[in-house]
Amino acid sequence: MRIGIDMGGTTIKFGVIDRENHIVAQSSISTNLHVSPETVIEEMVTEIRSLLEKNNWKLENCQGIGIGCAGMIDSKAGIVLYSNNYNWKDVPIVKEFKRYVSCPIAVANDADTAALGEVCAGAAMDEENAVLLTIGTGVGSGVILNRTIFQGALKGGCEFGHVVIVKDGKQCTCGRKGCLEAYASATGLIQLAKEKLEQEKNSLLYQWSDGNLETINGKMVFDAASAGDQLAKQVVEEFEDYLACGIANVINTFRPGKVIIGGGIAAQGETLTSALQKRVNDQCFGGDLGTIATIVTSSLGNSAGIIGAANLITNKRKDEER
Amino acid sequence: MRIGIDMGGTTIKFGVIDRENHIVAQSSISTNLHVSPETVIEEMVTEIRSLLEKNNWKLENCQGIGIGCAGMIDSKAGIVLYSNNYNWKDVPIVKEFKRYVSCPIAVANDADTAALGEVCAGAAMDEENAVLLTIGTGVGSGVILNRTIFQGALKGGCEFGHVVIVKDGKQCTCGRKGCLEAYASATGLIQLAKEKLEQEKNSLLYQWSDGNLETINGKMVFDAASAGDQLAKQVVEEFEDYLACGIANVINTFRPGKVIIGGGIAAQGETLTSALQKRVNDQCFGGDLGTIATIVTSSLGNSAGIIGAANLITNKRKDEER
Repeated sequence: MRIGIDMGGTTIKFGVIDRENHIVAQSSISTNLHVSPETVIEEMVTEIRSLLEKNNWKLENCQGIGIGCAGMIDSKAGIVLYSNNYNWKDVPIVKEFKRYVSCPIAVANDADTAALGEVCAGAAMDEENAVLLTIGTGVGSGVILNRTIFQGALKGGCEFGHVVIVKDGKQCTCGRKGCLEAYASATGLIQLAKEKLEQEKNSLLYQWSDGNLETINGKMVFDAASAGDQLAKQVVEEFEDYLACGIANVINTFRPGKVIIGGGIAAQGETLTSALQKRVNDQCFGGDLGTIATIVTSSLGNSAGIIGAANLITNKRKDEER
Repeated sequence: MRIGIDMGGTTIKFGVIDRENHIVAQSSISTNLHVSPETVIEEMVTEIRSLLEKNNWKLENCQGIGIGCAGMIDSKAGIVLYSNNYNWKDVPIVKEFKRYVSCPIAVANDADTAALGEVCAGAAMDEENAVLLTIGTGVGSGVILNRTIFQGALKGGCEFGHVVIVKDGKQCTCGRKGCLEAYASATGLIQLAKEKLEQEKNSLLYQWSDGNLETINGKMVFDAASAGDQLAKQVVEEFEDYLACGIANVINTFRPGKVIIGGGIAAQGETLTSALQKRVNDQCFGGDLGTIATIVTSSLGNSAGIIGAANLITNKRKDEER
């Protein structure tokens, strides 16, 4: 068995994964943002021990612990260089864990571990090469090449959400203007809806908001579009245009076998992926001569991070397992 | 010794490369676009034999022949999938060469071989990871990771020149709108100059053109800017903005140690690279926490392709050489 940890902004999720990548036990704790990194790590180790004890497992039988953490990670050095969520800087998370446990420990960016999860056990199980775009507050990207996380050659990671698609466009949280994230995130979708609603109130979406645009979320926009609301349809189509532009950029760069859409928006399923695929097919360099990735939605959802994190640890065969 | 071939639109260049990546002999033939691929390949073999004979070398002592060819290449299969320059489609170039010679043969995209050349013997000799952007009629990209060409996972290659930076922007030759190539190529630079000159003729650049905008080339724009021409300065600055946007996208994706600028524009040297570096430094995700690539100009110029192509062949040690 291996342990996967998904360090999110509000909760830290723990999972025990078997050889076939099934989650055989899981738990979570609330993220405590007001204590030191050392304390958070100690709490994580305590939770792992408790989870294993409850199931009568021993830490000594664990092949290793993999951690997915939001932020900029130096996987080779085992350091969280920077995490905005946790307000961490240069935290040697692997070294800290090793104070408590002797099994192998690995850390990677959480978008990367989620992508690895989808390739190991989810929507891209049949692929060696896949890219996950997680559409949430931002756009997280996880690039898997030869079933291994590609995190860029040197420190800083591969952040495809911060590739500019509209030069001098909308302000992005990263400091640049016009990043994919500024348009193709859930935040970007909602902002687009608000901009349109400020000009045109004759809309089902406006009715649903009771005149308070702050209540609008991504699902409402898609639901209104499905219900035939013209304004919402326009918003969805523009959003799909931006996301398709980003996906075609992914294909012209990495040529993966699949592009996986993750985040809440994945619930839109084939309606979304077929709309995206249609737009993307025309934009890939060399057309039919190159491999045009199939666009799919994530199949593991919130479990992708745990399963992927566990897969940072080599999955030993039964006869190799101690 | 290894042989490198650079198949360009007007000439095919041949070079014999020694163990230290020096070109010890070279020649070229005009590209004959009116004969079959088989005939072109036969002519290439004849030229190699002639080049070796002139120097009293034998083909049997050659460690291998590497070929850089413009277009979409399937390196694993040894096939030119498509080359616009040669009007080739699905040409099994490696197999064809093997009809004549028994040494190892390899083929790759010409932008990729040029990048490999710069890493093996040029501007990025000290780097494991570098990206070359060749600024010419288009924008060719060559990505080197761990001193090996990254050509995307599946068929179609990594074409960073065809990553959109201005959604719905200028028409690109590839069919998309707003690609980096449409703005940051020499063609893009000249087009930008023409657009400005059509609105404002009070300019040194306009005088130099004798009123015929078709005579304007990239060098003239840079020269006019250096001479203090306000309009040309504006054009150069806008061009640098676009190119810097593309370079920051490269860094946020690949995190190389160096980004190399190739093509005629490389003659602008440090004036250009320092202007680009200043713009790029502010746009890299995570700022100082990540590795910000140094921007340099190519140092091998037109020889990069030959040297890189030869380096598709493993460079054996002297004692290994037969």
